Order: sequence, then C-alpha cells, then structure tokens
Amino acid sequence: MDFDRLKELVFQNEAKIVLLVMDGLGGLPREPGGLTELESAHTPNMDFLASRGICGLLDPIAPGITPGSGPAHLALFGYDPIRYEIGRGVLEALGIGFPLEKDDLAARGNFCTVDEKGLVTDRRAGRIDTQFNAMLCQKLEEIKLPGIETFVKPVKEHRFVVVFRAPGLSDKLTETDPQRVGLPPLPVKPLAPEAQATAEAVNAWIEKAREILSPHPPANMLLLRGFSKNPQLPSMREIYGLKPAAIATYPMYRGVARLVGMDVLETGEEFADEISTLEAHWKDYNFFYIHVKKTDSYGEDGNFEAKVALIEEVDRHIPRIMALNPDVFIITGDHSTPAVLKSHSWHPVPVLLYSRYVRPDGVEKFGERACAKGSIGRMPAVNLMPLALAYAFKLNRFGA
Amino acid sequence: MDFDRLKELVFQNEAKIVLLVMDGLGGLPREPGGLTELESAHTPNMDFLASRGICGLLDPIAPGITPGSGPAHLALFGYDPIRYEIGRGVLEALGIGFPLEKDDLAARGNFCTVDEKGLVTDRRAGRIDTQFNAMLCQKLEEIKLPGIETFVKPVKEHRFVVVFRAPGLSDKLTETDPQRVGLPPLPVKPLAPEAQATAEAVNAWIEKAREILSPHPPANMLLLRGFSKNPQLPSMREIYGLKPAAIATYPMYRGVARLVGMDVLETGEEFADEISTLEAHWKDYNFFYIHVKKTDSYGEDGNFEAKVALIEEVDRHIPRIMALNPDVFIITGDHSTPAVLKSHSWHPVPVLLYSRYVRPDGVEKFGERACAKGSIGRMPAVNLMPLALAYAFKLNRFGA
Repeated sequence: MDFDRLKELVFQNEAKIVLLVMDGLGGLPREPGGLTELESAHTPNMDFLASRGICGLLDPIAPGITPGSGPAHLALFGYDPIRYEIGRGVLEALGIGFPLEKDDLAARGNFCTVDEKGLVTDRRAGRIDTQFNAMLCQKLEEIKLPGIETFVKPVKEHRFVVVFRAPGLSDKLTETDPQRVGLPPLPVKPLAPEAQATAEAVNAWIEKAREILSPHPPANMLLLRGFSKNPQLPSMREIYGLKPAAIATYPMYRGVARLVGMDVLETGEEFADEISTLEAHWKDYNFFYIHVKKTDSYGEDGNFEAKVALIEEVDRHIPRIMALNPDVFIITGDHSTPAVLKSHSWHPVPVLLYSRYVRPDGVEKFGERACAKGSIGRMPAVNLMPLALAYAFKLNRFGA
Repeated sequence: MDFDRLKELVFQNEAKIVLLVMDGLGGLPREPGGLTELESAHTPNMDFLASRGICGLLDPIAPGITPGSGPAHLALFGYDPIRYEIGRGVLEALGIGFPLEKDDLAARGNFCTVDEKGLVTDRRAGRIDTQFNAMLCQKLEEIKLPGIETFVKPVKEHRFVVVFRAPGLSDKLTETDPQRVGLPPLPVKPLAPEAQATAEAVNAWIEKAREILSPHPPANMLLLRGFSKNPQLPSMREIYGLKPAAIATYPMYRGVARLVGMDVLETGEEFADEISTLEAHWKDYNFFYIHVKKTDSYGEDGNFEAKVALIEEVDRHIPRIMALNPDVFIITGDHSTPAVLKSHSWHPVPVLLYSRYVRPDGVEKFGERACAKGSIGRMPAVNLMPLALAYAFKLNRFGA
C-alpha cells in the first residue's frame, strides 16, 4: 500500500515495536542436506519466540535479486527499494553524521595504492588505520575548487566521504574504481549532458588529490564511487506516526536510519551494549531498530562458525529485550550472506514476528527451512512494516 | 523488477539453465481426497530433484486466472503477460516459421463445415489432414485484395494462418468463430474506428474464400480468430544476456520462443528426441527451454492415465539431463490442464528448482500438494526467470 494511503490509516499509540536486524542473516548449508548458519546455531530464545510467534521468508527486493545493504534496509523500513534509490555516497555521508544539504553531491572514497605507472595495486590501501585516514582527509579538504565547497571526512580504515557543495551539481557520473588491480583509476565521465561541468570539477579535484597523496603510500591515490545526492525520503514519523530510534554501530546503517528520520542513539560496539542502549531509551521511543553488523561480516569472510557463534551470542541477550515487554518484536535479516558464498545473496531471509495477537503457526525453531513453513509465507520485505504496525494496533480500518 | 533495471544487473557467464515445461502439468484428483496426475505418476527422478532442490507453486498470470498457452509461456520466460500481449494469430504465424513483418496482420484460421443454410456443423472440419489443408491454403492464397498482400499457410489438421500485409492495418477486430455449432460464421467487426477499413477488407477476403471452399466439404468454410500484429518483444539475449535455445515440437511453442529471441532447434516428436537435441547442442547455448506438449493434450482429452504415463516417460529421461550437469534445472508447467476438467485451468502449477546453492526445503516428492509446502512459496510465474538467473550467478547486486 502506498504511503499516502497508509498514512491515512495510521493511529498513534504508545505500543512499542522492536525490529532486530541481523545483517546478512540468511545462509546456506555447507554441504548438500546440511544446516545453514542459523539452523546450526543453538538459539533457545529465538526458538521459543518462533513457537509463540509467526514466521516466514522475506524477499528483500524481489525473488532472485541480491540486494545491497541500502535498498535491503529501506525495504525493511517499508520503503519500496526500487522506487526509493539511495546512492552509496549519500549513505556513507549520513553514516558519519555529515549534515548533508539539499544540493550536496556525495561520493564514497577509498584510499588505494598505485604503482609508479599509476596502476592500482591495492584497492583498499592495505586497510590503513582510521587515524592516518583522518590526517589525509584533512589535507584533502584544503583543495580549492572554484565555486564549489568541498568536505572530506574519514569513515573507517581506507574509507572516506567527499562532498561537493554547489547549486546545480549532478550525480549522473561514472565511478573511478576500476574494480580490479592492475588498471589505472578511471576518469569520471558524465552520464548526461547536464553532468559535464560536474565531471570536470570532480576530475580536477582528483588531480589535486593525486598530488597531495603521492608522498603517502600505501594511500597514494583514491577511488570514488556512488556519486549521489540526498533523496529526501519521507520520514517514518510522517508516514507511520512513529517515534523511531536506531541502535547501530556501523556508520552506513546509522546513515540509512537517519535518512528515514530515526533518531540515531549513541551505543557501544557489542550487542550487549546495544541492548543497554535499548533499555536506557525504552521510554523515549515506540520503534527501535537494532542492527547487528557482524553476522554479515562473518558471512562475507566465509566464516561459518563465527557467524553461528554470533547468532548464539545475540540469542543469549534476547531475554533482556523480552523483559522490556515489547508489543511487537521482529527478528530478521536485511538479506542473506551465506558463508559458503562469501557475499550477499538473493536467498530469502527468515523472519519471526512475536506479538500477543498472532496465531502461532507450528514453527518451533527459528531457521530458514522452518520459516519456509510459517504463516507469514514468502513475501516482499517491504510488507513487513505494515504488519508490524498492525500487530501494534497502529493502523485503522481501510474503508468502511 | 522491470527489464530496464534487471538488464543493469545482468552478469554474463557460461552457467547453464534448463527450463523443462510440461504443458498443462498441473492437475486435479479424480475423486475427493485422491491424487492428481502428477501425484499419481511414479517419478523417482523428479522426486530426487525435489528433495535436493526447492519447490513451490506458480500462478501463471494471477490467482484465479486461467491462461492461454501464449501468456503462460511469456510469464515463464519472465515477460509480464499482462503488459506483453500476443495475439493467437501472431503465435500461429511464428510457429510455422512465417517471417512476419512489422506491419503484418495475422489471424489463426480453422477450416470448418457449414450446412446448406451456412450454419456451422463442425468447427474443425472433421480435423482434415494436413495435406488437404495445404492444398486449400494454396487456392486461398490466390485471392487478390486491392493494396493488400495476403499469405495463407497450413498449420496442422484444420488449422491455418492468414497474414494480411499492408501499411496501416489494424488488429482491433472481432473474431468470426461463433464458438458453437448451429450458428453462422460471424462477420468481422471493427473494435475501433481506425479498424473500419481493415474489417471491410477481411470480410471481402472471407467472401472470396467462401466461394473457393464451397466445393470442398467438410472444409467448405473457414473461421478466423486472434487477429494480431507482431508485438516486437525485447529479446532474452538483450534482457538477460543469455544465449537461449528452444526445443519444442509444436508450432505455437516454437513461435513463442522465436518471439523472445530464442534459437529454435530442429528436433523429433518424442521427448527422447528432444533430449538428444539438448545433448547435441549443449555446448552452444546457456539457456534451454524444453517443451512437452502432450501432457496438455491428454489433459484436454480427459485422459488421466495417458497424462500420468507421459509424466512417467519424461521422468525416465531426467537422468540424461542431469548427466549434462546443468547449473540450474527447473521443471514446471505453463499452466494446469486437469484431466477432470478437460481444459486449461487457473490452478497454480508445481515448480521444482534444482541447483547446488539451494536450501533444501524438506519437499521429497514432486507433486502439487508437496510443492505447496516448498520454500519457493506461491508466486507469480513471471518471477521464475530472475530466480533462475540468480541461482546461475547471472545477476549482480542491486544497489550498494
């Protein structure tokens, strides 16, 4: 249902919704007939919630489509991820709390290493430490472009954000990352005639950056990706009437949350810290998004056991969340990251919805195969928010 | 996901996809509580694939909608069958390899029998043999219309194709088949003002045809249906980056395949011949559509046992397909044709997807009820191609 219609149904109350997202939760068996990461994990608390709640499988975008984290999260927050596209640059900028303005053009940057011929030898500059990164960003921020203000801010390790501020900049630009080593960084090219001037300005900036970085190997060059502008999404307050808060450690997820109008709470690095943040702010909000990043990281690393162990750690803290007595408690992932594939995948994601007002569906275990038999069925992730609102009695009847 | 966006995600590789379509596969029990045709069939090979793959149910068009073969196949090939409509005339013309041009107007013809009052007594002219049909078509091709070139080509038995070639012809025309005996053939009427001249020309052609056919009972008249023009669909090569081939014996299915840009391979009448064709061309393509017609024909005939036997025959040849080691192997139908209904029906169609990268879903048998519990869930058939591409690693990530 589109936002305009949904908005008309919204009923504001104090019922509290918790959406726990384990990034890249969905997995695959290591061998035919084996168990996935989630199925292998000992998760008595999630299993109990599955038996008292309803389960299903979510397609983040559509069957067969492997999502990036941005669109996958937008879908979980109820935003059609095909209609609302956000560039990587914007996500990264928001993730570090950069106050993006309407006309800003943001890009995600990587420091990289180039050899004496200018060919990339390491696309991540040996993952330099964040302090070195910050020093380089300060130097890059001194670059002057006529009529364009520029900002260069460190993210983590080799990653940074560059923001170009001037009226009329275009984000219709190609990226400079050649995607593999042995090639030179590519020039920025305009993808539309109106982007010509922007492309020239960005290329001029890159040339000056090259000179500044040259004496600083392994970070002696940079690559820019995901040129994008602020998509100015409607906020979750506006659409759903919620007071939403995000508890996430990783910049990009804090950024997506900010983009949909959540308050982003300060928290610690561990899941236990995130739950402490939840407890501390329980009275202040009625929607909490809690993000666990490392399920995805371990999946990307191909580390099946670490992913299993992290899921088990999350499970151990579930009673602390239940002790707060949420009206609706959802556990899911934004997409699958099977350790056997070492990457995001298209496989649908298990979801569990706990509320007092469900018809338990006989699913007794939180796992991919068990969820496939649940009463939520297999549905697009974008349908999850209306379900959550409904179980929290936050939606009025449609029609008379 | 629309083709423009999907296209941007496509990654070309050599992974091979086999899509085996048993026409009208879905069935119904003969008595309450009984088994369907597929459930009755002894299919150890398909059952094994079901146990190693994932299963589900496909709605060819939408729940409750009984499809014709054209839209049902388009959906399997990933084309929204509501957006991309193809007329029966075009399908028949393509099925016999007629080189349709952009402006051509095609119609499907049936020879029929009329009595001395001109009332239809047999809508299929006693299913005259194809040679007699061919002789009649030659005579009909001699009809001259001012400014319009005409082609009349035999299909099989009583069926033929007529093509009118001239700029500006319209396909907004009513059909002449009264749909039951005891009525006269209907005149063609324009469904839009711009179709007035075309209707008059086609009616003039029919009058001349009546004179020519009059001495040739039981084929002493004809009926025209499915006036349509070439919809000029985007090709599967263009959208999916595939090298697609079709292995089908029946003209219409060869026609649909040609319409979406498949190479249509020469093959024999039996399923064993089709598999030999698959083996012979295995190296040349990375997508194979294999069509089995007679599951549908037996369903239409109400011949439950013959449909069961044919499914069993197909099953016996599955190991030959598996021996080729396809990366993705899908077995499904285009629609249901339950023998008890003797016609196409709206019931969803069982589907089985085998790949190394599935989470087996506990379905151990390929049948309608077993598939209803599978992890593909119940989904529109148009989602199948993106799934197939995903399991063959032919789609890149959507968004960052």
